[in-house]
Amino acid sequence: MNHFQPVSLEHASRLVNHGPTVLVASADGSRRNLMAAAWSMPVEFTPPRIAVVIDKSTFTRELVMASGHFGLCVPGTALVDLTYALGSTSGRTLDKFAHHGLAPIRGPVLGLPLLEDGCAAWLECRLISEPHTEAAYDTCFGEVVAAAADARIFSGGHWNFRDDNAALQTIHHLGAGNFVRAGGVLRART
Amino acid sequence: MNHFQPVSLEHASRLVNHGPTVLVASADGSRRNLMAAAWSMPVEFTPPRIAVVIDKSTFTRELVMASGHFGLCVPGTALVDLTYALGSTSGRTLDKFAHHGLAPIRGPVLGLPLLEDGCAAWLECRLISEPHTEAAYDTCFGEVVAAAADARIFSGGHWNFRDDNAALQTIHHLGAGNFVRAGGVLRART
Repeated sequence: MNHFQPVSLEHASRLVNHGPTVLVASADGSRRNLMAAAWSMPVEFTPPRIAVVIDKSTFTRELVMASGHFGLCVPGTALVDLTYALGSTSGRTLDKFAHHGLAPIRGPVLGLPLLEDGCAAWLECRLISEPHTEAAYDTCFGEVVAAAADARIFSGGHWNFRDDNAALQTIHHLGAGNFVRAGGVLRART
Repeated sequence: MNHFQPVSLEHASRLVNHGPTVLVASADGSRRNLMAAAWSMPVEFTPPRIAVVIDKSTFTRELVMASGHFGLCVPGTALVDLTYALGSTSGRTLDKFAHHGLAPIRGPVLGLPLLEDGCAAWLECRLISEPHTEAAYDTCFGEVVAAAADARIFSGGHWNFRDDNAALQTIHHLGAGNFVRAGGVLRART
């Protein structure tokens, strides 16, 4: 059973607010790719805008520049090996979806190949063309045009990290294949 | 006893690679401030460069633009209440260091007021002037010129999240005062 439900755009930035490692989905015509990226962040809530670092040498960068679109999928702890593998190989020489037996859904607005199985959430983004920032810092800005999340861990605009959804809890790359899991909610005195 | 030790610049980006919420330290003349920021990311390893979102309405933004410098401190779980408080008040009307009884060190290269007590790490950064990106996305780029970390949780260029250093483990803001703690290291099959 698929538990994904739409997330309203006003809440979309929250999906990556806490710094998870993401999978960048891209497609141009029949070419498609999925790449791990540790470096992304929201830059605005309304409209929801995101920055993500996509190295200029990557196949993903080529597809994003050609199509003007990218997706971000937020993998859960169950996908830690896949995430690392997706960050360690190039999609130029193989179709990573086929190679790893992944069956992406088609994003509702941009048609991007998005992974739901094992992921907590995804976002479809339209690239905001910023040639200087892309060239100087490999930093690509995008505006979120659709988002969804697994309702078992994100609903009503809020993350819910609990003992019973550990497999969907987000992962955060420390470097060299070591990740930390986000968990153990701390509530600040407000 | 203070456990902070210098981190070599080649490893500095790792201090924020996993998306922790940070405290942005700033100073211009006798004015100084410390503000929480959930939105930062590395953009390059060598030289180590960082992007951080600092809203144009904030006192921190004013000080950063005036001085051309900013610092990032990485609070541990013990500072979750302080972090939230630092993100909910403005330094224009009070000196947050004095108000919260914080005794910052003086950064070795830029002289920024950096918090070590309760933090896992800090970075001193020189602003890279990017007027368009600052205006359009509140995104400020900086080059790290000095970094240090508490050797109990980061040493030899690596994070070490263990049961015995939970108080120094990083916090990641979900929104509205809810944070998750990073912990539970997952080692990807490589």
